[in-house]
Amino acid sequence: MPISIATEPDRLLPADPGTRRIARGLLDLVEQLPIISPHGHVDAAVFADDLPFRDPATLLVTPDHYVTRLIHSSGVPLERLRIHENSSARDVWREFCAAWPLFEGTASGYWLRSEFSHVFGLEDELSADTSDASFDTIRARLAEPGFRPRTLFTQFNIEVLATTDDPLDDLAHHAALAADESFPGRVLPTFRPDAYTNLAHPAWIENVDRLISTAGDGATGYAGYLAALENRRQYFIDHGAVSADHGVHTPRTLKLECSEAEEILTRARRGERRDGDRERFEAHMLYEMARMSVQDGLVMTIHPGSFRNHHLPTFEKFGADTGHDIPIPVSYTEAIRPVLQDFGTAKNFHLILFTLDETVFSRELAPLAGFYPAVHIGAPWWFLDAPDAMLRFRSAVTETAGFSRSSGFIDDTRAFCSIPARHDASRRIEASFLARLVAEHRVSESRAAELIVDVVDRAPRRAFKL
Amino acid sequence: MPISIATEPDRLLPADPGTRRIARGLLDLVEQLPIISPHGHVDAAVFADDLPFRDPATLLVTPDHYVTRLIHSSGVPLERLRIHENSSARDVWREFCAAWPLFEGTASGYWLRSEFSHVFGLEDELSADTSDASFDTIRARLAEPGFRPRTLFTQFNIEVLATTDDPLDDLAHHAALAADESFPGRVLPTFRPDAYTNLAHPAWIENVDRLISTAGDGATGYAGYLAALENRRQYFIDHGAVSADHGVHTPRTLKLECSEAEEILTRARRGERRDGDRERFEAHMLYEMARMSVQDGLVMTIHPGSFRNHHLPTFEKFGADTGHDIPIPVSYTEAIRPVLQDFGTAKNFHLILFTLDETVFSRELAPLAGFYPAVHIGAPWWFLDAPDAMLRFRSAVTETAGFSRSSGFIDDTRAFCSIPARHDASRRIEASFLARLVAEHRVSESRAAELIVDVVDRAPRRAFKL
Amino acid sequence: MPISIATEPDRLLPADPGTRRIARGLLDLVEQLPIISPHGHVDAAVFADDLPFRDPATLLVTPDHYVTRLIHSSGVPLERLRIHENSSARDVWREFCAAWPLFEGTASGYWLRSEFSHVFGLEDELSADTSDASFDTIRARLAEPGFRPRTLFTQFNIEVLATTDDPLDDLAHHAALAADESFPGRVLPTFRPDAYTNLAHPAWIENVDRLISTAGDGATGYAGYLAALENRRQYFIDHGAVSADHGVHTPRTLKLECSEAEEILTRARRGERRDGDRERFEAHMLYEMARMSVQDGLVMTIHPGSFRNHHLPTFEKFGADTGHDIPIPVSYTEAIRPVLQDFGTAKNFHLILFTLDETVFSRELAPLAGFYPAVHIGAPWWFLDAPDAMLRFRSAVTETAGFSRSSGFIDDTRAFCSIPARHDASRRIEASFLARLVAEHRVSESRAAELIVDVVDRAPRRAFKL
Repeated sequence: MPISIATEPDRLLPADPGTRRIARGLLDLVEQLPIISPHGHVDAAVFADDLPFRDPATLLVTPDHYVTRLIHSSGVPLERLRIHENSSARDVWREFCAAWPLFEGTASGYWLRSEFSHVFGLEDELSADTSDASFDTIRARLAEPGFRPRTLFTQFNIEVLATTDDPLDDLAHHAALAADESFPGRVLPTFRPDAYTNLAHPAWIENVDRLISTAGDGATGYAGYLAALENRRQYFIDHGAVSADHGVHTPRTLKLECSEAEEILTRARRGERRDGDRERFEAHMLYEMARMSVQDGLVMTIHPGSFRNHHLPTFEKFGADTGHDIPIPVSYTEAIRPVLQDFGTAKNFHLILFTLDETVFSRELAPLAGFYPAVHIGAPWWFLDAPDAMLRFRSAVTETAGFSRSSGFIDDTRAFCSIPARHDASRRIEASFLARLVAEHRVSESRAAELIVDVVDRAPRRAFKL
Repeated sequence: MPISIATEPDRLLPADPGTRRIARGLLDLVEQLPIISPHGHVDAAVFADDLPFRDPATLLVTPDHYVTRLIHSSGVPLERLRIHENSSARDVWREFCAAWPLFEGTASGYWLRSEFSHVFGLEDELSADTSDASFDTIRARLAEPGFRPRTLFTQFNIEVLATTDDPLDDLAHHAALAADESFPGRVLPTFRPDAYTNLAHPAWIENVDRLISTAGDGATGYAGYLAALENRRQYFIDHGAVSADHGVHTPRTLKLECSEAEEILTRARRGERRDGDRERFEAHMLYEMARMSVQDGLVMTIHPGSFRNHHLPTFEKFGADTGHDIPIPVSYTEAIRPVLQDFGTAKNFHLILFTLDETVFSRELAPLAGFYPAVHIGAPWWFLDAPDAMLRFRSAVTETAGFSRSSGFIDDTRAFCSIPARHDASRRIEASFLARLVAEHRVSESRAAELIVDVVDRAPRRAFKL
Repeated sequence: MPISIATEPDRLLPADPGTRRIARGLLDLVEQLPIISPHGHVDAAVFADDLPFRDPATLLVTPDHYVTRLIHSSGVPLERLRIHENSSARDVWREFCAAWPLFEGTASGYWLRSEFSHVFGLEDELSADTSDASFDTIRARLAEPGFRPRTLFTQFNIEVLATTDDPLDDLAHHAALAADESFPGRVLPTFRPDAYTNLAHPAWIENVDRLISTAGDGATGYAGYLAALENRRQYFIDHGAVSADHGVHTPRTLKLECSEAEEILTRARRGERRDGDRERFEAHMLYEMARMSVQDGLVMTIHPGSFRNHHLPTFEKFGADTGHDIPIPVSYTEAIRPVLQDFGTAKNFHLILFTLDETVFSRELAPLAGFYPAVHIGAPWWFLDAPDAMLRFRSAVTETAGFSRSSGFIDDTRAFCSIPARHDASRRIEASFLARLVAEHRVSESRAAELIVDVVDRAPRRAFKL
């Protein structure tokens, strides 16, 4: 069966013919614009090394927990989605092809089908019967010089791509890329200190020891800890970073007395955590990170509300990011107040708030961003960066906050080859939403033409200070 | 006024002509498929006895709390919706006809209008003016041999109908039906132990005494209690049961030490409940029920989050299930974790999670079911099994979990004659949702044709092991 | 650029041509009906004095926190949106015109554009370039005799307008208007006792002192407090009030022992509040207010769930109602139960429940109002009285509660000139929602014609006892 739907020019656009015509016109204005990807998880080494991608399974299946999770839900153990002595790349690909029908209607299925068609030139739908053929086709493509990461980066029309990095990363790959005049793309690091601020992180004690000893300016204890974080932020800024990202359990913030923060830190480094220490310290450090952002200008992004590693046996066997991070209810209004009291109108402070709990969109994010100059509404994220969910997002926030207060699309992905499909889908949804407003005479067609360029291109540059 | 809208072939299908055409084509594929009803509240005695239904009021008004609640909200006391010495069936029917306009736009109104037209052959809308005529017409129909329960069962094209039963029920009606070769339908019991696990149930002490003494294999205390539950589950399985259902206040689960469970049970049997005992014991027993399901293979369904009997004066006067069970906020992610840690990947364990709190669909159910092989997403239930709500459900879960992880429609009803209308409505909504995906080029038309059969027919068989 | 979209006859109606045709027909039935505005914040003095409006900025910008909040979010300090020695009305208007593009897609933008076109006769869109011209045009209009408040009241076709008033207000303006035979409109006061029941209100102690001394019939303490509230309610009723409104942090209700209520009151008047006093007393007084409503017949409206004055520095500088009230999660089911247990079926008790948390619509409000005769579902409020949000509201509540249980539109505004646009938008959305039900054959066209008149005109009269 041919992958004809992936090449339909009007895919994702509204069914009503009049509205679709308007959407098509709006989409034409942004379809060719460069991709701005200010938050994601592709490794900078991919472009620094520019090695060919290994094989279809290693590129498209194993590392993508959007993909492995759904196959796992059908009863396929994660082992069978990894290459090991009893399982070749071709075996993994067979599992994936057999499971392909599970992805109908999903966002991942949409992106993947789009990649197969537009990036790899497959002409037929994946199927169990043809898994070897599709494996061979993709593997052959991956061996072509045109499929090296840097070439794809250019071909994908990516202008900026942000990675997510450990505070002690030396950012050598970023430096190498910046120094390389033959590579026109911008690959920017992002400061992500969770493993240094979450006392429950398995390696927290050694992380903090290393942080203070290598970057604490000789200071020790809490003073050294803060100094080291500030220093490393500056190091990131010097290497092009524009934002710091915080993956916290809840968005709670709290300004502790310095003495209490020091006591908790000291206790925790001795392995003597008390009840509430983890929560209070994380909330306090989220406040401190806001303070540092006000000082050094890094855009602050918060990604809260994911119960990480929900299935302990899977975590113990396969580690983190293996598909069982599950959202919990979130509320920002009281949680983020300490930060907004002190910095909500601070000059040039950008705070981008994300959520996996859709209820927050209309109830809290639009009202907060519709008052505080600091607050930007994060794009629909993770389980929500899908066509219907993105439409629900726009519908939920726009009537209160308009278009100017949202951060623009982020792909948040480690699946490099899915980036064009994700941004394309986002642009189609923006066009669809605006087209409906035009059809309902709520926005004029000429103004909609300006707005689509703004939300696709200017909003991420503005929100992320690019 | 004629009931013309009930016979419109395209009722419930999307207004856009192109999408409607696609939906119509999809609906054609499933409109005639047999009804699978794996969860509901019709009494098996109805079919075992096969007596004629008594009268329109007793059949369609008094026992249906969807109906009585809305009439009650308009100020009609529940007394007036029951037959007693001052109120005949005809009087009750008059109240209902007078209140009929209240039902415009409701799911109940849709089902009822459909029943009036398709089951009872009424040609005109109900109205206060014609209440005696409609009463007489329906009463005359009920007296016809073609309106006996078993005949309707066949005429409704029901293949499987599950009832909901007390663990100590002897299931004699189910046995009689299974033994009766003249009755081709399957009427299956469902194990529902709430009245034995909820310490706050008014009859809990006597229920547990009876349970242990009749089914505890001679053991006493907690050991006898567990053994008796296991024995009764097996008894249900032997009588065709495929699932156990749990109507809990919250979905919290907890694995208590055996000694603590025993202590709580002992205390509670003496009427000496302490703070937290009820919550801890119910959470523990929900865990234990999962463990038993893993062992004996009964599908586990959880229906949480209803504040039962909200209006105490009505409960005291009319008992339970009289229309004032009101939903509360629910979250599964942390609550169900103890069960999923231990059994989330257990072979052949099916756990179907329902919710009355729509926020759970995209935030938790789709992510959970999109990883854990055990978890299936329960269909929209109770206040949510309505056209718009079912579309919201599909939109909320599909982009993360696809179509394979949902349980298929359940009608959950004690209103036997509404079953065809409910399943028909569900099929129309599935066709509508898929048609939109086709129109937006997100699913191919040929794949949608397979999917609609899967969600209507195969999903409930698969999820409920039928 | 001409403001053509504001005059499109089909603005806000659904894009699908068939559905739009139906919606247009339904809208025709209600477009000319008088405006019933049973809850809002316009000052009665405006009509009693009937002075010309001062200038465009004072009328349309400074007092409207929907407007100032969004401009503030773009980085414009609130000072620049107020007239003072360094900032004229024309300066404020320039700021507004420069910020006008922020309002695209917002509800406020829709209302404002509608006002500019339909009330002030502007022919071009606002823009920074033409701000002086639009200022002059509007200012000239405001000087015309036809733009006096009373004339506009009539021209806007307002039949009833409720204000919101302090319990100790003498209601002289209301009395004057009622006595003035030249003014045909009804301007009704609304009893709003928050500043007397919320112990955390900055002026609570002096408010209560004054309340008891002026209206307590000579009694002191808790007895005087209750008597005074009852007396003032009666005073309001004598001046035409039909409702009492309660802007509470949460909808929690509680029936305290009289002695405990008295103790808390006594303590709090001495400035000696204990932990929990505020919450318990407010919950108790919400219960007491329900009791009084049952006795005196005032409709009770509850507006909970707004975290008031979220940004303390702004509150300290500019006071309350300056755009940083941010919603929090709300649940009514358990919170309102004490009131519903005792008064949920009380004769002639009307309790209208509002929410800023959309999750409450389908989960709680529709089920509560679909059983309790006392409960009416409040219209979408504040951030939710926008086209898409109003459609979500109807979709969320109708399938459970039908159309009869909602209160009808409230504009809840202090922006007098926006009232026609707000009611017009609401009517268009009601027509759109009903038109979809007709197109989907869920409601007949003739019944929809009755329903639209009911929801627009009869529902507010019924719910608010007008």
